[in-house]
Amino acid sequence: MQLTKKTLAQHADHIYDALVVGGGAAGLSAGIYLQRYLLSTLIIDKGKARSFWMQELHNYLGLPPETPGRAVLKQGKDHYLALEGDYLNAYVEEVIDEGDTLLVKVRIGRQNPTYEVFRTRYLIAASGIIDHLPQLADMKNVFDYAGYNLHVCLICDGYEMRDQRVGVFGSSAGSLEVAFPLGWFTRHITVFTNGAFEVGAELRDRFTQAGYTINEQPIHQFLGENHQMSGVELADGSVVELDAGLIAMGSKYHADYLQGIDLEYSGGNLVTDSMNRTSHPRIFAVGDLKVGMNQVIVAASDGALAATQVWRDIRRQEGTRRPLAEVLAA
Amino acid sequence: MQLTKKTLAQHADHIYDALVVGGGAAGLSAGIYLQRYLLSTLIIDKGKARSFWMQELHNYLGLPPETPGRAVLKQGKDHYLALEGDYLNAYVEEVIDEGDTLLVKVRIGRQNPTYEVFRTRYLIAASGIIDHLPQLADMKNVFDYAGYNLHVCLICDGYEMRDQRVGVFGSSAGSLEVAFPLGWFTRHITVFTNGAFEVGAELRDRFTQAGYTINEQPIHQFLGENHQMSGVELADGSVVELDAGLIAMGSKYHADYLQGIDLEYSGGNLVTDSMNRTSHPRIFAVGDLKVGMNQVIVAASDGALAATQVWRDIRRQEGTRRPLAEVLAA
Repeated sequence: MQLTKKTLAQHADHIYDALVVGGGAAGLSAGIYLQRYLLSTLIIDKGKARSFWMQELHNYLGLPPETPGRAVLKQGKDHYLALEGDYLNAYVEEVIDEGDTLLVKVRIGRQNPTYEVFRTRYLIAASGIIDHLPQLADMKNVFDYAGYNLHVCLICDGYEMRDQRVGVFGSSAGSLEVAFPLGWFTRHITVFTNGAFEVGAELRDRFTQAGYTINEQPIHQFLGENHQMSGVELADGSVVELDAGLIAMGSKYHADYLQGIDLEYSGGNLVTDSMNRTSHPRIFAVGDLKVGMNQVIVAASDGALAATQVWRDIRRQEGTRRPLAEVLAA
Repeated sequence: MQLTKKTLAQHADHIYDALVVGGGAAGLSAGIYLQRYLLSTLIIDKGKARSFWMQELHNYLGLPPETPGRAVLKQGKDHYLALEGDYLNAYVEEVIDEGDTLLVKVRIGRQNPTYEVFRTRYLIAASGIIDHLPQLADMKNVFDYAGYNLHVCLICDGYEMRDQRVGVFGSSAGSLEVAFPLGWFTRHITVFTNGAFEVGAELRDRFTQAGYTINEQPIHQFLGENHQMSGVELADGSVVELDAGLIAMGSKYHADYLQGIDLEYSGGNLVTDSMNRTSHPRIFAVGDLKVGMNQVIVAASDGALAATQVWRDIRRQEGTRRPLAEVLAA
């Protein structure tokens, strides 16, 4: 059920089998599997998963190719709630390893927040990442186009950019390297530094050889209408016309709550085994937070795998399940 | 496009970037990703993937929980064809490693078959498995219920069997072990040997301790109506009432066409790396054929991963893509 401040109290003493941090594709898929294994599950979601921003999913088997990301999340949440999983809108602040259980501290609400703790046997970190965006004076201008034809994922949207005039917006010289695999889809590429960093001679030479344009002016704003970006207006008033954009400024990893636990990382990503277990035996990581490809269909599969391993663990420990009536009453 | 005997000739000299054997969830997802990487793809499907028989998918993120497996396959095939991928209904007989390419020999049609060969740079084996079913005198009686409430997948359908009276139909004493994880979902279990094999003392004792019933009579037929199995009629005319069944008789692996190539297997499953590459650098395996969990959502993810690695390989070899017009004209 959807938990609220009012209904929270009756769950305070309950030890969940699995607590899932994040209600995106990976977390919801995990929740659906966990509930179908008759485990007691709580998903805690802070809102607005990365896929929520995707206006159109084009590559998810079984869905028509213009399905909005938020439609998948809506269907998944309804599905999970219909299976009687618990769901709470809140922000996970900290996880503490208590031995047999994990203590999860959460903040509920933005104004006049309240604080609550939950206990769980297993934790599935599905809190994902969020893309850094160009920092312009008017951020509303950026949000007008991001997720439409101002893309953040080459693998997802390279096809949509084929043979188009594409601007690549990076945050460092290294981040602009994405222009080369983008060159598979289109040769009409302008890389923008927004005047924020230098491009070294070697990289400059590779861009030139590939036929790419380098633009090092500060950006004033994106141009366009109806969420379709049509170009960039630079600080000096000049305009570069574009058909699409690719933002490659790295990501923020939503994993601060795990700082107190010793886990193995590779870059910002959690290292897991083939069932998505981290180096901690009762913590799993799924979706964009773990090492691997950041795709919605992969995240959904990740959740299924982690949930199944949690079930196997618990089943092997317990042998048989508590009677169904007891589980449902919990 | 959907290839036919008539349109085949124009594709005879073409070397595909990737040929996918099998048009189930894994193969279609691979095909969708491959076409979106602007690679030339051919899916060869013999018809009736394992998921085609699933009357209801209950655990696939983004789809309503009673979606028929064949609806996912239909949507996926339409999606793939809309991306201009090639698709052929045929049976792959043999794959021969020619060095830079793989030669794929196929048989087209059942009556008066014709034979054709295709060449491809990469091959994705997505041909899956099919479950062995109880061999009764009247097989139509088995097909009436298999895939409805006569299940073949504990992970998929354990939830549907919770607290029900379930019959487990095995092909050997070892295959009946599935009754123990099934015991997580229900305690009302009868294991059936169909009079075909012995149950040793140790296993018999474990069944008794778990409270399961052992039935060693030959089975005459399943009872029920409207695809809802309601029990088993034994050879002696007696009846065992059931709410559901679980068939656990192992599977046939559709991988005979790979016999001439030295690949690493674990049991019947192909061993792959994290991107689903087999021990052969240009052959990938996805879905039920590879080591891992047999779930539709996992298969769909597998296809995405394999397709992406094929694209990375080809991109790194070629640097830039052929002009789009040339690709589309191929």
